[in-house]
Amino acid sequence: MKIDLSLFFFVEAIGTIAFASSGAMVAIKKRLDLLGVIVLGVTTAVGGGMLRDIIIGNVPPALFKDPVYVLLAFITVMLLFIIVRMNQEILAGRSIETYEKVMNIFDAIGLGAFTVVGIDTAVLSGYGDYDFLIIFLGVITGVGGGILRDIMAGQTPYVLRKHIYACASIAGAILYAKLMNCMNGNIAMVIGACSVILIRLLATRFCWNLPTATKN
Amino acid sequence: MKIDLSLFFFVEAIGTIAFASSGAMVAIKKRLDLLGVIVLGVTTAVGGGMLRDIIIGNVPPALFKDPVYVLLAFITVMLLFIIVRMNQEILAGRSIETYEKVMNIFDAIGLGAFTVVGIDTAVLSGYGDYDFLIIFLGVITGVGGGILRDIMAGQTPYVLRKHIYACASIAGAILYAKLMNCMNGNIAMVIGACSVILIRLLATRFCWNLPTATKN
Amino acid sequence: MKIDLSLFFFVEAIGTIAFASSGAMVAIKKRLDLLGVIVLGVTTAVGGGMLRDIIIGNVPPALFKDPVYVLLAFITVMLLFIIVRMNQEILAGRSIETYEKVMNIFDAIGLGAFTVVGIDTAVLSGYGDYDFLIIFLGVITGVGGGILRDIMAGQTPYVLRKHIYACASIAGAILYAKLMNCMNGNIAMVIGACSVILIRLLATRFCWNLPTATKN
Repeated sequence: MKIDLSLFFFVEAIGTIAFASSGAMVAIKKRLDLLGVIVLGVTTAVGGGMLRDIIIGNVPPALFKDPVYVLLAFITVMLLFIIVRMNQEILAGRSIETYEKVMNIFDAIGLGAFTVVGIDTAVLSGYGDYDFLIIFLGVITGVGGGILRDIMAGQTPYVLRKHIYACASIAGAILYAKLMNCMNGNIAMVIGACSVILIRLLATRFCWNLPTATKN
Repeated sequence: MKIDLSLFFFVEAIGTIAFASSGAMVAIKKRLDLLGVIVLGVTTAVGGGMLRDIIIGNVPPALFKDPVYVLLAFITVMLLFIIVRMNQEILAGRSIETYEKVMNIFDAIGLGAFTVVGIDTAVLSGYGDYDFLIIFLGVITGVGGGILRDIMAGQTPYVLRKHIYACASIAGAILYAKLMNCMNGNIAMVIGACSVILIRLLATRFCWNLPTATKN
Repeated sequence: MKIDLSLFFFVEAIGTIAFASSGAMVAIKKRLDLLGVIVLGVTTAVGGGMLRDIIIGNVPPALFKDPVYVLLAFITVMLLFIIVRMNQEILAGRSIETYEKVMNIFDAIGLGAFTVVGIDTAVLSGYGDYDFLIIFLGVITGVGGGILRDIMAGQTPYVLRKHIYACASIAGAILYAKLMNCMNGNIAMVIGACSVILIRLLATRFCWNLPTATKN
């Protein structure tokens, strides 16, 4: 049911770094202090998994018992804070563009990894028969951290606003939930995660957007 | 302890439709995309019950195991989205007034139904002896979805701002919690729900408002 | 493991009054109605403990089973509401300064008491071996009510914005978690709580602030 842990740890670690960075950048742009930057960064990285664990009654959430991802998120945030603090002009310079391109790819990888991990956790907790539940848990693991980040930062959650962000997670979650019953679990997991990443990157590249109810 | 399920399903369905519509309209007015409209609509409809279930440890919350109300909310939101998309001028026209009047009545029915269902769920889960708890759970089932809607949409929760909204739910919840011990449960439930609906409709009709601490 | 209950009840009561007042004042300044003032006040007072209990699966949260602090918060809020309502000019007068000074001290006491109580609850629930978890639970008990208050009031959480608020709680929580293993529990608890209060008061007095990433 689980693919090679070391590979998976690596993929989740990339996602953690990307999510922590996105939370920290929101906090830095809002001019929050060091603690605010740490809280938003770490919450973005591990908040989705925490919501998932609370919803299925897996308490205390896994992140508290084995805070390895919390630590990784913390280190990421501290590094980012120090770099920005040292180079004030960095936020306006050209390197920020490269940074954002790399982080966008990392973020897509994290979204894919977290989505399938969320489903896996739900299935391992014995809820494999509830299709809607496991898909929801996959998606909330993927996008929940970003929702908490935006609620705490006082902005309408990013996933509600634009780009095919949650949609990529939903599509991959449905794919993995369906495939896991008819083929090798590991392969299904990789297909699910990769489809999330692919949809997300294509959506960013080609500016795909969902329709709104009111035109113009 | 439970009244005729088919009647109750019908009443809850009306509430679900009204709550889903209110969430979807907030999202449409905020110009969120299709996914944002769906998420806000469905969250408003089922969020109160989810909060209640998490608070009493009834996990995963009922809505995930039997997502019939999620489906109903989803269909409601999609229909509303398509109608607004097809008739752009509808949001400014006269039919919107009729729509809002009907939805206001539906919303009151939903508030009444969800409040007594919340209390019933708490009692059936074995917390009948904790008066404060079951009243709170009734109220949070009634108003929780709207609170989540407003937090996600970045506005101060409606229930905190005006009209006797939560008050209607609180009054009916107290009434039902008291009556259920001294008369037939079904009748107490109907009285509780109807008192919520009545107070809510009278408050809208006569613009009742609670006092604020600072005048003018 | 627990110090004299009557003393502790007294200290927690001071914290409850301070937290309820701070929530009520935010609501009054936002011109919310009576219910909004009550909800924000009570949530600020008991919200941290509720979050803690949900995270460790201690459901329904303690506050619902024995709502003594809810009642105390409610009375505090009602008194404050009536006083402001009776004396409209009080919010602009000189007595408000004295009030804010007293409340600031009460708030520091509450932060200290809630932090160590949160850790104690976590340890008594059997999580004494998870350092990160118990420290987190102590801090969330201390600052969680204020975070909920700010999210509901639609402002960026105070703890994310300024003053050494959460930091005081974190420092005291770490201290208590470390000391409790190597000395008498009651004394460790008092040292932990007092260090929170001291850091908090010193930070207010000398305007300590954490650095931000961007200067000026």
